[in-house]
Amino acid sequence: MIPKSHPRYQSLMIRELIKEGVEKGIVHITGLIAHGRGEAFDYLIGEKTQPFAIKAIETAIAYFKIAKNPIISVNGNTAILAGKEIVKFANKTGAKIEVNLFHRSVERIKKIIRLLESYGGKNILGLEGDARIEGLEHDRAICSYEGIYSADVILVPLEDGDRCQALKNMGKKVITIDLNPLSRTSITADVTIVDNVMRAIPKMLEMYEKVKEPEKVIKNWDNRKNLQEALDFICNRLKNMFK
Amino acid sequence: MIPKSHPRYQSLMIRELIKEGVEKGIVHITGLIAHGRGEAFDYLIGEKTQPFAIKAIETAIAYFKIAKNPIISVNGNTAILAGKEIVKFANKTGAKIEVNLFHRSVERIKKIIRLLESYGGKNILGLEGDARIEGLEHDRAICSYEGIYSADVILVPLEDGDRCQALKNMGKKVITIDLNPLSRTSITADVTIVDNVMRAIPKMLEMYEKVKEPEKVIKNWDNRKNLQEALDFICNRLKNMFK
Repeated sequence: MIPKSHPRYQSLMIRELIKEGVEKGIVHITGLIAHGRGEAFDYLIGEKTQPFAIKAIETAIAYFKIAKNPIISVNGNTAILAGKEIVKFANKTGAKIEVNLFHRSVERIKKIIRLLESYGGKNILGLEGDARIEGLEHDRAICSYEGIYSADVILVPLEDGDRCQALKNMGKKVITIDLNPLSRTSITADVTIVDNVMRAIPKMLEMYEKVKEPEKVIKNWDNRKNLQEALDFICNRLKNMFK
Repeated sequence: MIPKSHPRYQSLMIRELIKEGVEKGIVHITGLIAHGRGEAFDYLIGEKTQPFAIKAIETAIAYFKIAKNPIISVNGNTAILAGKEIVKFANKTGAKIEVNLFHRSVERIKKIIRLLESYGGKNILGLEGDARIEGLEHDRAICSYEGIYSADVILVPLEDGDRCQALKNMGKKVITIDLNPLSRTSITADVTIVDNVMRAIPKMLEMYEKVKEPEKVIKNWDNRKNLQEALDFICNRLKNMFK
């Protein structure tokens, strides 16, 4: 029982959420490790959506506006942390959702689909397994033809660097949400939103209408420069924390 | 099945190790989150034993050389990640090993002792529970009289800040291995090795003979200055990452 007065109440409640996700068979146990990593990086960026993230969100929205077949790839952690908002975003943008797991398990895909459907999600892809992401081995390549395989723009929060690279090699535009600006995923993606998925998705919903001239926004985007901004921010914060 | 070709193969295999540790009842589930946090900070220091860590390791060795009753405190994560090396180090230095857990469980202590014995460890303390660390509440205070209680120098990798402070209050010299230079443990310890325990312990073994004049090394040690070096390193690395 964590008292609401505990200074780290929200953080602890979110951990409980993830833990329950593991117990319900929705989050893979290594998802707890990923969550710890996210916590550390979130602490470093001040647990807030910073300016560099706002700009990346704007560019992500721009991509969704010009996309012909935008897909949102969802794994266990993403579903538990931001499933409701992702369903809203999919409905708003007309994007399809595909449940796609690093540690593929039909059982877990079914549970995640059920969870998203409970949030109002419809026609959730993921069980088809009728296509492969080129260049990846074993189960990690399995995807849906109608979803990830045919996508032109994919939003893959909390993604594995290897798959991010493979998707780019297939000519897709990859948008990720990753608290670690140094991960392979972050460095590889076309647009990296360095923020917590629990803040970023609601922010994408909120900012959606406001993005005009998407082609211009995309043209002006420099992901590397934006990652450097995130790192400079972290560096300055570290310097100030050790006074 | 993680293919050897995956660019993050080693990191992923270590995660599997931790995961198995949980399944074997050796690592506490919160240990998964702690591991993720460590991964984040390891990204920041470049996943390598850096100069500031080498100096801290030298000082840690110096303390072991002059200690009368040096103890190595081991928890689940430490045992899984560096158990073999820790047994070697204990044998080399004559230090005793005590299994001491934040989330105390006699069952888990037994399993960890068995693991360390399988690596050649002998007379591993931890089950005695016949002393208390002053200033701590409940089970978190329980320790062994022959071990932590009577120690003059304690190596406590991956430790809780609260217990680190309590041990210092009892007049002990505390050496820690912590990837986060800003944690309460790091700031509180007498010697903080800002490095991954999987690299640091082998390094301590390797460097052991080379440390001469331990009193001099200890006299010249400034832990805060070393932590500042770690932070400066991180900052310089981040600032130049995408330039």
